[in-house]
Amino acid sequence: MTSAEPTDAAIEQALKAPRIAVSSVAPLVECGQFPAKHLLGQPLAVAADIFVDGHAQLAATLLWNRPATWDWVPLPMHPLGNDRWEAILTPQVPGRHRFAIEAWIDEWETFRHDLSAKNAAGAATAVDMRDGIQLLERAHDTRRAEAPRIADLLRRLETAPPEECTAILLADDTAELVARLQPRPFLTRFASIFRLEVERTAAAFGSWYELFPRSQSNVPGRQGTFDDVIARLPAIKSMGFDVLYMPPIHPIGYSKRKGRNNNPQAGPGDVGSPYAIGNADGGHDAVAAELGGLDGFRRLQTAASQAGIELALDFAIQCSPDHPWLEQHPGWFSRRSDGSFRCAENPPKKYEDIINVDFYGADEPRDLWLALRDVLRFWIAEGINIFRVDNPHTKPLPFWEWIISSIRRDHPQVIFLAEAFTRPAMMARLAQVGFSQSYTYFIWRNSRSELADYMTELTAGPAKDFFRPHFFVNTPDINPYFLQTSGRPGFLIRAALAATLSGLWGIYSGFELCEAEPLPGREEYLDSEKYELRARDWNAPGNIVNEISRLNLIRRSNPALHSHLGLSFLEVGNDRILYFAKATTDRSNVLVIAISLDPHAPQQAILQIPFHLVGAADDAALEVEELMRGARFAWKGNRQHWYFDPLELPFAIWRLPAAGASWTH
Amino acid sequence: MTSAEPTDAAIEQALKAPRIAVSSVAPLVECGQFPAKHLLGQPLAVAADIFVDGHAQLAATLLWNRPATWDWVPLPMHPLGNDRWEAILTPQVPGRHRFAIEAWIDEWETFRHDLSAKNAAGAATAVDMRDGIQLLERAHDTRRAEAPRIADLLRRLETAPPEECTAILLADDTAELVARLQPRPFLTRFASIFRLEVERTAAAFGSWYELFPRSQSNVPGRQGTFDDVIARLPAIKSMGFDVLYMPPIHPIGYSKRKGRNNNPQAGPGDVGSPYAIGNADGGHDAVAAELGGLDGFRRLQTAASQAGIELALDFAIQCSPDHPWLEQHPGWFSRRSDGSFRCAENPPKKYEDIINVDFYGADEPRDLWLALRDVLRFWIAEGINIFRVDNPHTKPLPFWEWIISSIRRDHPQVIFLAEAFTRPAMMARLAQVGFSQSYTYFIWRNSRSELADYMTELTAGPAKDFFRPHFFVNTPDINPYFLQTSGRPGFLIRAALAATLSGLWGIYSGFELCEAEPLPGREEYLDSEKYELRARDWNAPGNIVNEISRLNLIRRSNPALHSHLGLSFLEVGNDRILYFAKATTDRSNVLVIAISLDPHAPQQAILQIPFHLVGAADDAALEVEELMRGARFAWKGNRQHWYFDPLELPFAIWRLPAAGASWTH
Repeated sequence: MTSAEPTDAAIEQALKAPRIAVSSVAPLVECGQFPAKHLLGQPLAVAADIFVDGHAQLAATLLWNRPATWDWVPLPMHPLGNDRWEAILTPQVPGRHRFAIEAWIDEWETFRHDLSAKNAAGAATAVDMRDGIQLLERAHDTRRAEAPRIADLLRRLETAPPEECTAILLADDTAELVARLQPRPFLTRFASIFRLEVERTAAAFGSWYELFPRSQSNVPGRQGTFDDVIARLPAIKSMGFDVLYMPPIHPIGYSKRKGRNNNPQAGPGDVGSPYAIGNADGGHDAVAAELGGLDGFRRLQTAASQAGIELALDFAIQCSPDHPWLEQHPGWFSRRSDGSFRCAENPPKKYEDIINVDFYGADEPRDLWLALRDVLRFWIAEGINIFRVDNPHTKPLPFWEWIISSIRRDHPQVIFLAEAFTRPAMMARLAQVGFSQSYTYFIWRNSRSELADYMTELTAGPAKDFFRPHFFVNTPDINPYFLQTSGRPGFLIRAALAATLSGLWGIYSGFELCEAEPLPGREEYLDSEKYELRARDWNAPGNIVNEISRLNLIRRSNPALHSHLGLSFLEVGNDRILYFAKATTDRSNVLVIAISLDPHAPQQAILQIPFHLVGAADDAALEVEELMRGARFAWKGNRQHWYFDPLELPFAIWRLPAAGASWTH
Repeated sequence: MTSAEPTDAAIEQALKAPRIAVSSVAPLVECGQFPAKHLLGQPLAVAADIFVDGHAQLAATLLWNRPATWDWVPLPMHPLGNDRWEAILTPQVPGRHRFAIEAWIDEWETFRHDLSAKNAAGAATAVDMRDGIQLLERAHDTRRAEAPRIADLLRRLETAPPEECTAILLADDTAELVARLQPRPFLTRFASIFRLEVERTAAAFGSWYELFPRSQSNVPGRQGTFDDVIARLPAIKSMGFDVLYMPPIHPIGYSKRKGRNNNPQAGPGDVGSPYAIGNADGGHDAVAAELGGLDGFRRLQTAASQAGIELALDFAIQCSPDHPWLEQHPGWFSRRSDGSFRCAENPPKKYEDIINVDFYGADEPRDLWLALRDVLRFWIAEGINIFRVDNPHTKPLPFWEWIISSIRRDHPQVIFLAEAFTRPAMMARLAQVGFSQSYTYFIWRNSRSELADYMTELTAGPAKDFFRPHFFVNTPDINPYFLQTSGRPGFLIRAALAATLSGLWGIYSGFELCEAEPLPGREEYLDSEKYELRARDWNAPGNIVNEISRLNLIRRSNPALHSHLGLSFLEVGNDRILYFAKATTDRSNVLVIAISLDPHAPQQAILQIPFHLVGAADDAALEVEELMRGARFAWKGNRQHWYFDPLELPFAIWRLPAAGASWTH
């Protein structure tokens, strides 16, 4: 009927297969294809369903190790009920960790559990005792330090009356002794090894400020330099930003240079797009002379570091037609049928000031990949540990997986931000292959349902284990339609949303001045800094510098705002108001936040404050602080009316007192 | 800074890694650890996210094969948008299928797409044409049948004016020709091979009737036989049941035999539990003489088959103390410290009439496993193709995975039903390792939210790809509390729920008579047939035979009821009413069902009928049939009032006309 061979192999395999099932391990990214992400020093709950046939008692251990070691550290796992087990690990170094789960049948606990049930029912028999003694005898190993104590127990059990026997067999001491000795029948171990990428706090929490150094002179038409940026540092710091990000600072190509407002013909004196990287002065590891060269950069690096501001550079893998690589390594670029280099295109549009590398060119692509890694290493040696990566979705995924893991292996402090605005699958995958942070669709999410749906996807779906959203409110490429018509209130709204919904937020300079003049009908800035110098009056009236400063201050002192996680949306009978709570896992910091989404008209609502989050009854009296206004309220009962005035401040951030702190009934 | 070795290996690996990502494949069970389940002859949508860096056009193929072959059949996949691709496969034979996905960059379509965009913008250049010609030259292979046509195209392109060149390069004909020839750059293939277990329809759709043959004499105190069961077949068939399931039919042990109502002491003449399998007459491959022996069984098998009823047997892996195996193979059973066989226990309870085998005993467990497979093979040779497996959660998972796949490899028509009432993880895993169908928690789900939550879990969660719920309304072990107090209306309610919510439902005999007398305070039947003979008056007044017959008739003729899937819950302003729609994937069969959950009082509701499911506007006039009453209604508008009378019929099943059939505005 059937050939004997495959069946025989199958039964041998089945007899050896793990009897204990370990499944639904969390955190787990794409079935373990990619590491989950986590933060240094933060406790992480690792959980799994662990179960076996029958009613035997199980025991389980989480094994984990630090980067580059195979030195497994065991942590006991605890049952949570319904076959779910958990252990909490807290990584102490950054980098790639591994963990695994082992489980086994705990024969002694099974026996003890059964004997205890029988004993309670008065149904324990001499054979039950004898079964226990037999187990003890089997565990006995004369070579072990525990041997004398086991031998002693066995001697006592030999002669003791039934009650004493029962007591010995049920004792915690005995169980502990056996646990140290016991064989681990049906041990399931290392069926899978799971990975965990541990990063420093800045990977998840940071307030970014983006500027073009060349626009920092404050004098119209005068080229700004790194020294001008140094002069701006106190203002940036005072607004509460801790990362300063600059678009490419490299020499800019002359061939096919773009003019103002993306004019295909540059005029004389036009400064070109900094994304057209490279000219005769150098490429990705050179610094534009007009900005102050490498020396100027180093001065800025020192000053920023002293100010407590970390610099982030752009990693834009593209070349102007004048980049030295085109001559030195023509094989790194693809050619057209007429022998010319292929410029960047999005047909019918052409970006003739940019030539893209060919990651799979016929000539030694590995040299290109290594050269790109050398670029990163160069800047890391210059003290840069954050790279904002331009358009990563147009470069191969295996390249990113390789370069990020290769860099992080030696420099686990390095953070990569993916500037990908593309379809969801690619956005997710870039985060999976290693990007620490990601640009998002936030910039286009304005209504309550859009924001709630998107935040739910980021905080409750699989993304929560690998995707850290970075909420930029604007970028040099995106002048959001919402802000083009919202006026100042809209800037306050978007700042409040970004700063409270995400651990990572950023503004591109001009936002604090409520700049929003568009190229007509486009989501682009008029007279964009991408193509020309700009000078600004940083104290222009109507700015929102104070509000931004306050938001960043609140962010720093409230751990609930250090992550997009810990979010729960709350019901409110007004769909122009986004109403939510942010809380740390341990609920030591609980914020309740309401943001009117309407920049044009006042809104109001009766808010039902989630007193239960701090363990208070709905009718309790709570002392609450509104953090933006620094006002304290004594709230009696959880229903509170609030009025949101776009002309004043269209949002509020209340901090509830920690559980058990200061309320009465 | 870093040792060269591991990095070098990493870059080589990265350079060869798939550039194209294939992810979120569906259906997929536990990351592919177990096969997804599907039905013979039913179309299955296989989908995946397929994407690559940049803007290249992709192409993808689903490869699949039939059981035991590696003969891959390709099916083109079609983009659904947002990087999702899909192909529909329709398996034609039962058994284990495999599928894989391959994807590649379609260079010609990419070129064509770009040229078309440039052409539309009037921006196509001679170099663009030349690029296309170069691609065509590269695809040209003189050994291929298409070579003359390609050569001809190349000749024409040589001399044609630009417009004609463009036309040739953009032509569908050209694209088709190139598609046949083209190399498949960056081909991603067989990164994973996915499995699909294809079963016959009865695995998902069936109406079961359970009875104890020994209770079928209809004469109190007289042992029933298979011939009595034969006499019952017309009634069972007329109620619309198509599977007849019998608890174990093997010789019953005498030692420690249980008396009536589970009395530990059997009286003289007590018949014992059929789950205490085996005596001197034989074990699992023997038939109790008092039922008519193997000959009687064969007569029943023939008669049932003629009546269009399929027999299902119980596979209960346990032995009475008198089972021949205890003497023949003592090593298959575990012993206690005093040398006695270990009886079944749930401490402090003991089931002394049952000895469990030890699947991992010291003596040749493989002989035990093979013997158990021989038992199944014996009954398959007797024509049995459905096994209801008793308590599978107390036997090892690797055993089930092996025995089911081993049996199904040779007999892919065989169906296994898991009778596991245990925690969710084990319930799921049993279905994953191969059980075709599973007992469920349905029997304890009574309120609207309980039912809706449970059905949502089964139809919308991962379970939908592997777990086929079998909704028994009662079993010999479970006399539901709900039915103990509901009276006849409760039986109608539970029958309607089971018969419409699940493709698989079953009753244990007595249900149609609304039997519910409990052991006081217990979820058990008084005078349970498990321990004694029962005789019933099958025509007793108050029975629900007609309603059950009607339900089964409706089930047979409405494909929407052949599965638990295709379910959507509908809002209704009365939480004692479960209101839902069932529809086939193609919406050729759409039922709207409302079931009052209240057996004690009438309920009513204004139902909002989902006219949109058949493409009708909310204010359309629809001709609708209520299938239980056989009444036709002309509904004008989608809001309809209904009154549910427990004393009449507390539910309704409306069939909407197929889309576009018979409505007017």
